[in-house]
Amino acid sequence: MRNAAAIIGIGQTEFAKDIGRPERTIALEAIRAALDDAGVTPTEVDGLVRFNLETTSEVEIARNLGIPNLRFFAEVGYGGGAGCAIVGLAAMAIATGRAQVVVCWRARNRGSGGRPWAGTGMRVGGDYQWSVPFGLVRPVDQIAMLARRHMHEYGTTSRQLGAVAVAFRGHAARNPQALQRTLITVEDHQASRLVADPLRKLDCCLETDGAVAVVVTSADRARDAQGRSALILAASQGTGPEHVVMTAYHAARPLETPSTWAARDLFAAAGVMPSDINVAQFYDAFTPLVLMSLEEYGFCKRGEAGPWASAGGLSWPEGELPCNTSGGGLSEAYVHGMNLVAEGVRQIRGVSTAQVTDASLCLITSGAGVPTSALLLARP
Amino acid sequence: MRNAAAIIGIGQTEFAKDIGRPERTIALEAIRAALDDAGVTPTEVDGLVRFNLETTSEVEIARNLGIPNLRFFAEVGYGGGAGCAIVGLAAMAIATGRAQVVVCWRARNRGSGGRPWAGTGMRVGGDYQWSVPFGLVRPVDQIAMLARRHMHEYGTTSRQLGAVAVAFRGHAARNPQALQRTLITVEDHQASRLVADPLRKLDCCLETDGAVAVVVTSADRARDAQGRSALILAASQGTGPEHVVMTAYHAARPLETPSTWAARDLFAAAGVMPSDINVAQFYDAFTPLVLMSLEEYGFCKRGEAGPWASAGGLSWPEGELPCNTSGGGLSEAYVHGMNLVAEGVRQIRGVSTAQVTDASLCLITSGAGVPTSALLLARP
Repeated sequence: MRNAAAIIGIGQTEFAKDIGRPERTIALEAIRAALDDAGVTPTEVDGLVRFNLETTSEVEIARNLGIPNLRFFAEVGYGGGAGCAIVGLAAMAIATGRAQVVVCWRARNRGSGGRPWAGTGMRVGGDYQWSVPFGLVRPVDQIAMLARRHMHEYGTTSRQLGAVAVAFRGHAARNPQALQRTLITVEDHQASRLVADPLRKLDCCLETDGAVAVVVTSADRARDAQGRSALILAASQGTGPEHVVMTAYHAARPLETPSTWAARDLFAAAGVMPSDINVAQFYDAFTPLVLMSLEEYGFCKRGEAGPWASAGGLSWPEGELPCNTSGGGLSEAYVHGMNLVAEGVRQIRGVSTAQVTDASLCLITSGAGVPTSALLLARP
Repeated sequence: MRNAAAIIGIGQTEFAKDIGRPERTIALEAIRAALDDAGVTPTEVDGLVRFNLETTSEVEIARNLGIPNLRFFAEVGYGGGAGCAIVGLAAMAIATGRAQVVVCWRARNRGSGGRPWAGTGMRVGGDYQWSVPFGLVRPVDQIAMLARRHMHEYGTTSRQLGAVAVAFRGHAARNPQALQRTLITVEDHQASRLVADPLRKLDCCLETDGAVAVVVTSADRARDAQGRSALILAASQGTGPEHVVMTAYHAARPLETPSTWAARDLFAAAGVMPSDINVAQFYDAFTPLVLMSLEEYGFCKRGEAGPWASAGGLSWPEGELPCNTSGGGLSEAYVHGMNLVAEGVRQIRGVSTAQVTDASLCLITSGAGVPTSALLLARP
């Protein structure tokens, strides 16, 4: 599958707190933009892959765009864990000849749609019955437990988490599409209110309405998109053993999340090492996930990501591994990580607003703490 | 992808009206049975693919079985359209090296779980707002419209629909696992009550609780399973243009359902013709879907399936194309078509209770009238 497929188009809506249009509408807008960017007409599309959370079905998208027939459609669960996985599915469909042009998208309208965890009166079943009644209600509560564990095991500090937020805000300040562009300091981070101890407001991603889409096709066809395509060198998914979504605290090593497993498969499939990677887009719903991912994907030893971030390792242009160069979920927009995929393509194209010189290999990761996925994009 | 993967294990629970155990439990039972049948341990499984309707997540299955890591997981929507698609996804994962052993399953507990369309007080959104308020509430109402259209266009009769039910009941009578084994005649069909004109009770599949699972691995590994593996020659999906789930009556040719498109891709990918096929398992939630599929997959010309069925074309052993040799959804069990996949494997193995002599190529189809999928299984 190595380099069989490529992303040749990216598209997005504006990012907003309350976008005022239905998820179906913004999905179509982002997909239209991605197709225009790719120079592909809807009649050429024959595959769609979505998050299972998506409220718009593939056939609604197809009908509204004028796609004549979907030869491939599938979806992936687990919220933020799905972003890279759906692109990986598209690449599989291309590599096996099941489809020629596959679109992947994510559209969110939370401004008007509410937050599911706000329904505190609701009955909680499944695995969540073991955590929600004890106060782990919101994602931020659940990830706070992992942040605390990282502090406990390795001496990681809140200021080190703050360094992640500060670095990404610096990148967002250069990105006209980013929702939050005002520079911040670690002191600002420390002064922001506690949301779920030890996580503060500036440890949390933005609540965003918006949609992002990408167009995947064969590497052969991508050759026509000179300088604009990003080869899919490898894609992987992982869960690890005994996984419980968001709350796998019972594991022997709670900081060994599904990312550890996705990383192992990704590097094996790609035949590269972390040191080969120029730039990364880490899933950053919360700052500690970035530190954990730096360790799980092998850029730092376990426990060393905090000092590494504080020393500027994530920053552009001078950092050892510039990360989330659009501002990421923390400062550009939180579209379940699909905006990270778009930014990865911009880096490979050489058009990011925080462009890494000669970026040839970009890592993109999906949600940590859930069944996850990862992508490696390469310059052709 | 041709013949890259194979089904090496099938498993199922008993089929029942009210099975009395949760869907998670029966899913695990069927998967355990399929793994035992394949001679594979849970520690070797590294992929799971499910219907998006499934109430049990992949990680719940993995945790309860002792699967150490899922390298591949995905799902497909559209209810009965997904059965062959999930096996096709598993085959793609195998063909591209993303996984080594992938399990696909479906588990249903309707006896205690209720019927979604019975909630007549509920608010109906999306595409269903155009049909439900006008009385097309249940699947049987929706398919009745297509049956009437087939009668209108081609002169198909209720007795011809009855011939489908009679043939499949004949097969079920030989299958100890089938829920309905009492032989019926076309007169019995005609005497059964109208459920949604022109469809009678004996035109409808059984309401069934139960679970079915299959184990997919590489064709190389399947060689160890001498005489027990079924090669996946090809898999396809399709929607056609302007599709509306279950109610695409507005189309220029309403009887040209997504199956027409899945059929075209399936035969092209496999490099075979309908006349090469010895035995078929057609998705049979309702009898008219079988007639439509016979035409859409090219076994009869458009409009000729009714007389063809009445002349015994579907029957075992003397029919031109013995179909649904376990009794199918109409008489064995309705597990969203996954029991059809299991029966396809039994035919290729040569162990069906209505075994077609020298069955070497079995067609399996998923739901017609929804975004659909199809499989061709071949003897190694």
